[in-house]
Amino acid sequence: MKYARFRDPAGAVRRGEYENGTVHFATESYSIESDEIDVLPPSEPSKIVCIGKNYADHAAELDSEVPDRPMLFLKPPNALAAHDDTVTLPAGKERIDHEAELGVVIGEQCRYVSEADAMDAVAGFTCVNDLSNRDDQRQEQNWIRGKAFDGAAPMGPVLATPDEIPDDAAVRTRVNGDLRQDGSRNQLVFSIPELIAEITTYLTLEPGDVIATGTPEGVGPLADGDEVEIEVEGVGTLAHSVRIP
Amino acid sequence: MKYARFRDPAGAVRRGEYENGTVHFATESYSIESDEIDVLPPSEPSKIVCIGKNYADHAAELDSEVPDRPMLFLKPPNALAAHDDTVTLPAGKERIDHEAELGVVIGEQCRYVSEADAMDAVAGFTCVNDLSNRDDQRQEQNWIRGKAFDGAAPMGPVLATPDEIPDDAAVRTRVNGDLRQDGSRNQLVFSIPELIAEITTYLTLEPGDVIATGTPEGVGPLADGDEVEIEVEGVGTLAHSVRIP
Repeated sequence: MKYARFRDPAGAVRRGEYENGTVHFATESYSIESDEIDVLPPSEPSKIVCIGKNYADHAAELDSEVPDRPMLFLKPPNALAAHDDTVTLPAGKERIDHEAELGVVIGEQCRYVSEADAMDAVAGFTCVNDLSNRDDQRQEQNWIRGKAFDGAAPMGPVLATPDEIPDDAAVRTRVNGDLRQDGSRNQLVFSIPELIAEITTYLTLEPGDVIATGTPEGVGPLADGDEVEIEVEGVGTLAHSVRIP
Repeated sequence: MKYARFRDPAGAVRRGEYENGTVHFATESYSIESDEIDVLPPSEPSKIVCIGKNYADHAAELDSEVPDRPMLFLKPPNALAAHDDTVTLPAGKERIDHEAELGVVIGEQCRYVSEADAMDAVAGFTCVNDLSNRDDQRQEQNWIRGKAFDGAAPMGPVLATPDEIPDDAAVRTRVNGDLRQDGSRNQLVFSIPELIAEITTYLTLEPGDVIATGTPEGVGPLADGDEVEIEVEGVGTLAHSVRIP
């Protein structure tokens, strides 16, 4: 099953079942690409917990090593953006990169979750673009200007239940149609149950919270006007453009 | 003026005017120390933006220097705790410290705020304890296990409007009655308007969001059962205990 959140023509926020490009709520159906509705992020996270260097090939392209426990950082709600949005990036930076990621949407409030029970806390998966302002990220102890700026977490277009996503689901970025990243869920250094167990040792996760599980190799800079597509096999494709003022 | 948020005897969340230890809502009045009500954090932040090394004497005690622009990090809503709470700290750590801080509560949604206009966006001030798990903080690029764990941001007991807080307001910690930190608002390296201008260059602040403006020298470890008091002159005293499982 897949679900989309959207603002309907009357301005009401709805969550409907999604199938073949169409979202259904009560007696109404809309194409997800229709101008009648605005697609919203598929959940309302109180926080997005992001994982750094969780693909060995991406750690290598950063001249870095895979950490011995998950590397965590945060994006707050101001970072959210949706399918079809134009994201305005911070001005005056040399390099702001795309990072395609498999997003895990949490379904229930939880803490101290064992790896064995972790998937019970998962509502489903979505696509996340972990937009990264390298100019500031390189200078900061904590990546706030680098990773938490407004619009730094486009997410969507839908939430797909776990059965929809193969174990080796592809995680891809295309920029203006060109393939830039092409990884797979089965390359994750720390698995989703390992991440949930580690995070919930310290932090309570809430329904709608998102874990962005890290990006495969191939990150690269974005330019004004670029059209970005983040695909997770089984979820679909999150599309957004970027504007650099 | 001062305001307290609390859960009344019927379980309803209310915000009342606070005066001399008593909070008033509609026809009811309660002592803030009464068992009839639960004092809650004075706002519901979508994020707490914290400032590191914003007192020169604290930077020195860390064998560090004052940064050339504000050092930012984040505490998400799971970190909140309230006046009179017992905060359960992460287990098995060598050192978890108190950090008394002046908290700035934002009153309106804002971005790109100039220093000249910054105080217009401030609803008031409160006390924050920036609890810090040094074991993990020292190992992490981003301070998540170190600073964002559940209960890592006790906050309260009230919100005081800006006119209540002198420019040289004392910022103090007492542990079991002993004075441990004794700084002043006028020692801030980056002023509150400078912080708001810098943060809102990158992040939208929401009503209720909090900026924790940094801690003066004298940070130190907490032990199981300690009674902690964080005082900001003009706000009052946030009291909580800690439990180490």
